[in-house]
Amino acid sequence: MTVSFAILGAGRIGQVHARAVSETPGATLASVYDPLDAAAGSVRDAYGCDIRSIDEIAASADIDAVAICTPTDTHADLIEQFARVGKAVFCEKPIDLSVARVKACLDVVEKTGARLMIGFNRRFDPDFRALKHSIDKGNVGKVEMVTITSRDPGPPPMEYVRRSGGIFRDMTIHDFDLARWLLGEEVQTVQAAGSVLVDPAIGAAGDYDSVNVILKTASGRQCTITNSRRASYGYDQRLEVHGSKGTVSVENIHESRITLASAQGYTRPPLLNFFLERYMPAYKAEIAALVEMVETGAEPPTTGRDGLLALALADAAVKSVEEGRVVSVGEILG
Amino acid sequence: MTVSFAILGAGRIGQVHARAVSETPGATLASVYDPLDAAAGSVRDAYGCDIRSIDEIAASADIDAVAICTPTDTHADLIEQFARVGKAVFCEKPIDLSVARVKACLDVVEKTGARLMIGFNRRFDPDFRALKHSIDKGNVGKVEMVTITSRDPGPPPMEYVRRSGGIFRDMTIHDFDLARWLLGEEVQTVQAAGSVLVDPAIGAAGDYDSVNVILKTASGRQCTITNSRRASYGYDQRLEVHGSKGTVSVENIHESRITLASAQGYTRPPLLNFFLERYMPAYKAEIAALVEMVETGAEPPTTGRDGLLALALADAAVKSVEEGRVVSVGEILG
Amino acid sequence: MTVSFAILGAGRIGQVHARAVSETPGATLASVYDPLDAAAGSVRDAYGCDIRSIDEIAASADIDAVAICTPTDTHADLIEQFARVGKAVFCEKPIDLSVARVKACLDVVEKTGARLMIGFNRRFDPDFRALKHSIDKGNVGKVEMVTITSRDPGPPPMEYVRRSGGIFRDMTIHDFDLARWLLGEEVQTVQAAGSVLVDPAIGAAGDYDSVNVILKTASGRQCTITNSRRASYGYDQRLEVHGSKGTVSVENIHESRITLASAQGYTRPPLLNFFLERYMPAYKAEIAALVEMVETGAEPPTTGRDGLLALALADAAVKSVEEGRVVSVGEILG
Amino acid sequence: MTVSFAILGAGRIGQVHARAVSETPGATLASVYDPLDAAAGSVRDAYGCDIRSIDEIAASADIDAVAICTPTDTHADLIEQFARVGKAVFCEKPIDLSVARVKACLDVVEKTGARLMIGFNRRFDPDFRALKHSIDKGNVGKVEMVTITSRDPGPPPMEYVRRSGGIFRDMTIHDFDLARWLLGEEVQTVQAAGSVLVDPAIGAAGDYDSVNVILKTASGRQCTITNSRRASYGYDQRLEVHGSKGTVSVENIHESRITLASAQGYTRPPLLNFFLERYMPAYKAEIAALVEMVETGAEPPTTGRDGLLALALADAAVKSVEEGRVVSVGEILG
Repeated sequence: MTVSFAILGAGRIGQVHARAVSETPGATLASVYDPLDAAAGSVRDAYGCDIRSIDEIAASADIDAVAICTPTDTHADLIEQFARVGKAVFCEKPIDLSVARVKACLDVVEKTGARLMIGFNRRFDPDFRALKHSIDKGNVGKVEMVTITSRDPGPPPMEYVRRSGGIFRDMTIHDFDLARWLLGEEVQTVQAAGSVLVDPAIGAAGDYDSVNVILKTASGRQCTITNSRRASYGYDQRLEVHGSKGTVSVENIHESRITLASAQGYTRPPLLNFFLERYMPAYKAEIAALVEMVETGAEPPTTGRDGLLALALADAAVKSVEEGRVVSVGEILG
Repeated sequence: MTVSFAILGAGRIGQVHARAVSETPGATLASVYDPLDAAAGSVRDAYGCDIRSIDEIAASADIDAVAICTPTDTHADLIEQFARVGKAVFCEKPIDLSVARVKACLDVVEKTGARLMIGFNRRFDPDFRALKHSIDKGNVGKVEMVTITSRDPGPPPMEYVRRSGGIFRDMTIHDFDLARWLLGEEVQTVQAAGSVLVDPAIGAAGDYDSVNVILKTASGRQCTITNSRRASYGYDQRLEVHGSKGTVSVENIHESRITLASAQGYTRPPLLNFFLERYMPAYKAEIAALVEMVETGAEPPTTGRDGLLALALADAAVKSVEEGRVVSVGEILG
Repeated sequence: MTVSFAILGAGRIGQVHARAVSETPGATLASVYDPLDAAAGSVRDAYGCDIRSIDEIAASADIDAVAICTPTDTHADLIEQFARVGKAVFCEKPIDLSVARVKACLDVVEKTGARLMIGFNRRFDPDFRALKHSIDKGNVGKVEMVTITSRDPGPPPMEYVRRSGGIFRDMTIHDFDLARWLLGEEVQTVQAAGSVLVDPAIGAAGDYDSVNVILKTASGRQCTITNSRRASYGYDQRLEVHGSKGTVSVENIHESRITLASAQGYTRPPLLNFFLERYMPAYKAEIAALVEMVETGAEPPTTGRDGLLALALADAAVKSVEEGRVVSVGEILG
Repeated sequence: MTVSFAILGAGRIGQVHARAVSETPGATLASVYDPLDAAAGSVRDAYGCDIRSIDEIAASADIDAVAICTPTDTHADLIEQFARVGKAVFCEKPIDLSVARVKACLDVVEKTGARLMIGFNRRFDPDFRALKHSIDKGNVGKVEMVTITSRDPGPPPMEYVRRSGGIFRDMTIHDFDLARWLLGEEVQTVQAAGSVLVDPAIGAAGDYDSVNVILKTASGRQCTITNSRRASYGYDQRLEVHGSKGTVSVENIHESRITLASAQGYTRPPLLNFFLERYMPAYKAEIAALVEMVETGAEPPTTGRDGLLALALADAAVKSVEEGRVVSVGEILG
């Protein structure tokens, strides 16, 4: 069987998913929607699909799955619309910036029985999966302390910052999801610190550019997350999981595997700089997982609940910085 | 423009090139030939091309380029046949196991003015290209000493060994080509040592499984090549170029980027084990280079002469081991 | 000139300093004191010094400096006694477990004009100094985020745990001092999380064995500290300093520089396991710094105030865990 | 017991051994000899020994062992003189530049029953010993291929080059000894290539500055040695041993363990640059081994025969380059 996709939203991330679908065995890109004709046309021309409206896609019997790549404030509505017509739904994170809206949306999903997969692409990175596999084999024993380092090469445009919901909901949310995935237990409390060290304009917009977070589970497992909006040496993405029997870690991806030894020392190239390049294998594996989900009827590998809980941790982090105290996740979820 | 390919020979390496052609922008796989119907049919089904005979392909106006992936003893005849009908020709190494036959074949190619590219895939490996780029930028100054380490995970089947022309013509030939590429000067003399350390059956077949070679150019630049038919830890492929200002090297590719620290120490996974997996990016870059050659009319990035000279170095290495002396390449080329 | 030392306390750390003194050019070990004759005798026999009582040492004109290696609860009294007789005083951390007592002691030191150096040995580690030197040269630009990872190979005896003042005052105190050294600004607030994951007996004693801390300075620079009382792979000691222009880090010290590649992967040996072995070069450099201080009359490289502030950060961390909130250092220092 | 040493020759290497003796438990430096009063006086002042003539040392009952650090052309005579008076003799390599003279000297040593240890310091390097220990434990299975890389930071003074006996007898001789130690079988044949790439003056003196060697044992085990008189990045000293079950290697020693990540990439410091600094732990372990030999009456860890055979491999390499052929070690040893 071949899973037939429509892409909703032909911006940068939509184009990534269009490419991933087109290169995934068992998947085919049937259609694309974008409010801008030029954007939709560009995907159509590159991958040989057609262009339809959202309602046409919802009504199309030949579409099995939709990938929602539109702006965040449309996600929840689109999830509900396509859940109701029985499509498999892939949606970029976050579902919404409001926990209440997310919960309402997930209620609809649950009632319709639709399968919803959230785009936490990092869980599909081959190296991160190898780390998870090593943990699952018991190599580190009982998981005790997780350390996540994530630094962007540079801050996003201020216009993006303003609409992003803040660094915790936009950037750290990936790390919150990874933390839940790796800790093996739900997070119970959150404490965080936020600073403006990279660009005062980010502070003027009410956001931070440099944050640290400590998460803790009921049994006392902990995770620290370090984020910065700037890293001169590329896109810094590291994981480390410490347990009773050992520690497993993932190193970064450099531009190439060469080392130059000279009077200045031993130099390896900087890291891959762009998130699309860094995570392209993950985006492809993500689509392959979605295809497998549709074909086998399996549960989504990343669920709407995963989307909700990552958002709740972000809200808790915001509250922790604002109030200078440890915040329970229960306070957020109600 | 799109370059239309026919693949001649649908065995393992033919399938690799079929996949590479199908995934290369600007290339399309039009046709496949194989004496075995099942093999040809498998490529046709996987990539949606048709099946034609060799003569049909030679007569087809819709075929721009052929990739010769048939047994070695058919290479020279096929190169000549397709050169005469004006196709761009890609041929797997070696052109032939006889220097005389290769020279005769290249004479035909020259007379027809056909463009012939030889499949020295390693020159297209992204990490090796990064190393070459670093040298070309002058980072190591004047090149002085090249060190090439190449070890297979395990020996090939004995049937393959017997038809291979011996380790120098089958395995080291890649390193001879890399040495010429990296030394920046033609090799003048060859000395080599061969041993049977891995499998006595290889020795019984008149071949070696463990060899070392020293190459020297007119100005005294040197290259050492170390080969073994066995490496417990995967497919070991390393380059190091030492020069007046520094040394640049390429490290191996591990199965993943994780490290497990435990009471036993710090352990990274073994290397990628299979040459197709290890060099798939190189095979794809190779086809892209061929497409560019056809589109732009540029010179082949790896020429018939490259094929001839790598073979001559292999012949010189064989002679050096047999006679216990330094062999001049001129003795081989006549 | 030669600086003549007396060692007070001939236990494990006293023996380390006796060895360091005996191997330091410009230093000589004149005398040792220990309430146990056997302990004092062992140092005398190994290094050829004599044995004197505390009061004799205080009255000895031939002693320039004392190294206080006795139990923590005697430190402050001894510092005061030797400050009053004008000896240079080296004291192992902590000065005392009470901030008030430390302040009183430092008042005496100040009044006497004595020079007091506190044993924060890590500042003298050659690799850590190389990192600090790189920061001071401006290689990372403005310091923004410091990450300190410190894990012991295994928990100390429970008897030690009970007298230690708790993990923050005993183990993290080193990292608090390093954080102050590396941040380049005083810490303003502390938040911390503590868990019992390694040994329930540690929890029963009212202590934690796994902690994370976030420190923040007035300008928003942050430091995270990760501690565990257990690491299967040895004594894990890492620093990373992230700034506006780059990041500098120090890797661990393995038992040797070999790597074994086999079917199981690429394995390096575990880390040096014992703190004395790991930091012996630091202990020696520390004594050399003390000698230089005495000879040149320079300020102590690690002062009593450094001892006070590291303890204050530890107290703030304890309070933060207990009260689930961010604690200001000012609350502790009063 | 304490082993009492006299150092013969107070030049650079003599001072290294004086320091090593003075820091080795169980050893004491009693006396020093040098034809230059200033040189001898400098060792006397630094380590508190006395100055005696060679004959006085030979006649001194209080001297157990001598370390011969005089010019090469005096080594054989001094070995014979001190062997005859029953001293334990440590001699820097080489024993002599003539195989015949070495053999005659070793005959005297054998007749006197004296114990002679040759200064192949690299066998005592802690990392190299860890590699050897790994091989001896069977970690790599049967040894098949050894790879030795040794590059000096820069060429020695031309005056030294002229008296050195040539690169093979001066520099490669260390690698010949390591090769024998690691191969586990005696070398049977040698082939080598020599070039002048670093400094034409070296060529004018009849020597090479860039050489490669292939050694082969009776069973076919091979070793390649790569030497250069120049490495911009420091003193490059690497070993790799490949066997049936795996490969073990030793990495270089950098100036420190820091890495700076910046827009230019990830940079580690250059290597330790000076052989004395690089191998100081080996020099100390060498003296400790000599002390143990004297105390226990054990066989020397590096024998006169080791000195003879390393020299024979060097002579064979010279002959191989001159005659362009594989040279049997038997041709040299007669």
